[in-house]
Amino acid sequence: MQRIVVLAGGVGGARFLRGLRVAAPDADVTVIGNTGDDIHLFGLKVCPDLDTVMYTLGGGIDEAKGWGREDESFRVKEELAAYGVGPGWFGLGDRDFATHIVRTQMLGAGYPLSEVTAALCARWEPGVRLLPMTDDRVETHVAVDLDGERRAVHFQEYWVRLRASVEAHAVVPVGADQAKPAPGVLDAIAEADVVLFPPSNPVVSVGTILAVPGIREGIADAGVPVVGLSPLVGDAPVHGMADKVLAAIGVEATAAAVARHYGSGLLDGWLVDTVDAGSVPAVEEAGIRCRAVPLMMDGPEATAQMARDALALAEEVRA
Amino acid sequence: MQRIVVLAGGVGGARFLRGLRVAAPDADVTVIGNTGDDIHLFGLKVCPDLDTVMYTLGGGIDEAKGWGREDESFRVKEELAAYGVGPGWFGLGDRDFATHIVRTQMLGAGYPLSEVTAALCARWEPGVRLLPMTDDRVETHVAVDLDGERRAVHFQEYWVRLRASVEAHAVVPVGADQAKPAPGVLDAIAEADVVLFPPSNPVVSVGTILAVPGIREGIADAGVPVVGLSPLVGDAPVHGMADKVLAAIGVEATAAAVARHYGSGLLDGWLVDTVDAGSVPAVEEAGIRCRAVPLMMDGPEATAQMARDALALAEEVRA
Repeated sequence: MQRIVVLAGGVGGARFLRGLRVAAPDADVTVIGNTGDDIHLFGLKVCPDLDTVMYTLGGGIDEAKGWGREDESFRVKEELAAYGVGPGWFGLGDRDFATHIVRTQMLGAGYPLSEVTAALCARWEPGVRLLPMTDDRVETHVAVDLDGERRAVHFQEYWVRLRASVEAHAVVPVGADQAKPAPGVLDAIAEADVVLFPPSNPVVSVGTILAVPGIREGIADAGVPVVGLSPLVGDAPVHGMADKVLAAIGVEATAAAVARHYGSGLLDGWLVDTVDAGSVPAVEEAGIRCRAVPLMMDGPEATAQMARDALALAEEVRA
Repeated sequence: MQRIVVLAGGVGGARFLRGLRVAAPDADVTVIGNTGDDIHLFGLKVCPDLDTVMYTLGGGIDEAKGWGREDESFRVKEELAAYGVGPGWFGLGDRDFATHIVRTQMLGAGYPLSEVTAALCARWEPGVRLLPMTDDRVETHVAVDLDGERRAVHFQEYWVRLRASVEAHAVVPVGADQAKPAPGVLDAIAEADVVLFPPSNPVVSVGTILAVPGIREGIADAGVPVVGLSPLVGDAPVHGMADKVLAAIGVEATAAAVARHYGSGLLDGWLVDTVDAGSVPAVEEAGIRCRAVPLMMDGPEATAQMARDALALAEEVRA
């Protein structure tokens, strides 16, 4: 049985994973989820990326938005607003609230996030093993200029409230340097046959996971194909606002530049979209095998084909 | 301006208070609320009696049930059940959840319950000053036989889950002996012109409030009329199951027995329903002035009249 490890952010990672399950239904898939955009709201611990993966694979996602629960209502949030309690900019729905209530209660009882995540997944049966990158607290902060002052804001405030509309001067996964990979993470990497980077944000999703000491090294040393898919198509993000945070780390917002940013020490193969076929030579010059294939995740079959292409590239690398 | 102090439980107390506001619109009313049936559910602090008073006077109550929010939904609770997280027997609605989230967050930030209650009331504007009897933790437990063993269960488990269907051998307000009256409670009593006991449960509502050291003494020493209304009409509780817990403390479930239980050291006047007019002499023999008036709180005007009757009896006592 093929063992696949996937480093996943939110919407892009979750949708790719759904394609991967179709492409490789018998594979043993371990997902290492980003927790850098976790946030405490209303006294509750919210893990947006873990939940997006869990809801998407478990059949509970809002398909149109790509995050949150389907058939959602917002009565708790409306009542909190009536008490003058915010933030109002974060869309926590009633059904979603229950997840955060269960999580917060279990964390309060002393369970680590990895065990809490397993307990939540017992309901959703995502068909993959979903591990948080770490049980320790990591919080991605973004340095921006607000009201004439440079301030560090929580990633969610930058992403959701400010909609990445101001320049990001720096992106810092606060606490990552002291964090330990969650139980199972390094073992899964060491035992993997393939490691995949889905078209997730290379800075605040995959980049944050790689910032946990031991994970990047484990992947580089695993001696198995590491293949990624470009989140940029025609130099623009397919979903989200990856270009905004790439600028903050001095990386050009192109498919080739992201591959070079990961580097040949980490990445063996890279898929770019067919519209970016011209960038294949530049990626291969950097020592990374590259193929141009359709990378728009429009529909289950297109997404499954992307996963097949990634696995095929991995086999090419291995041969 | 007349200063009135009312010791209130849940539904009965709240409805009486609404009548009192109609009967004495210019009075300065302080409500000392029972917190003995507070419970922690899903990691949240729930104060059923305080909320019933707040919602009823603030116009947010479910009129049919007498507790909880009007136009309520139960999506969070359904989702919690889907996670296998209970208890399912406690009816926490979506709109109600927001109250408990705000309260729990404020308590976690270090505010005492009395300040949290004031903050919540800033939204509801109940037209009275609502004080919890204490900022300390008091939890009413009931001794029952379950599965062949005597056990102490939380009052809510006895009341809501078991529906008072098993014999209560004892009712204990755990922690009351160590509790201090909340800020403002003793001052309000000392400055009151009248103290009223609405037709609330004499054991688990008014009795619990009186169990906080200093409150009973403060009322007895205030030197002002103390008038109560019988929660029993025709020897049966108008609302709730007061007879079940009266047995536990060895008090007969009659209007007269409840008056004697409070005693002439505390109570100056007592209203019984007209169907219990025959018990007036027995109450007066115990040194408590007694009148028989309609005590069914069916509608705002009937309830306002009860409040007028109580205030009139207080003036009779004073004269």
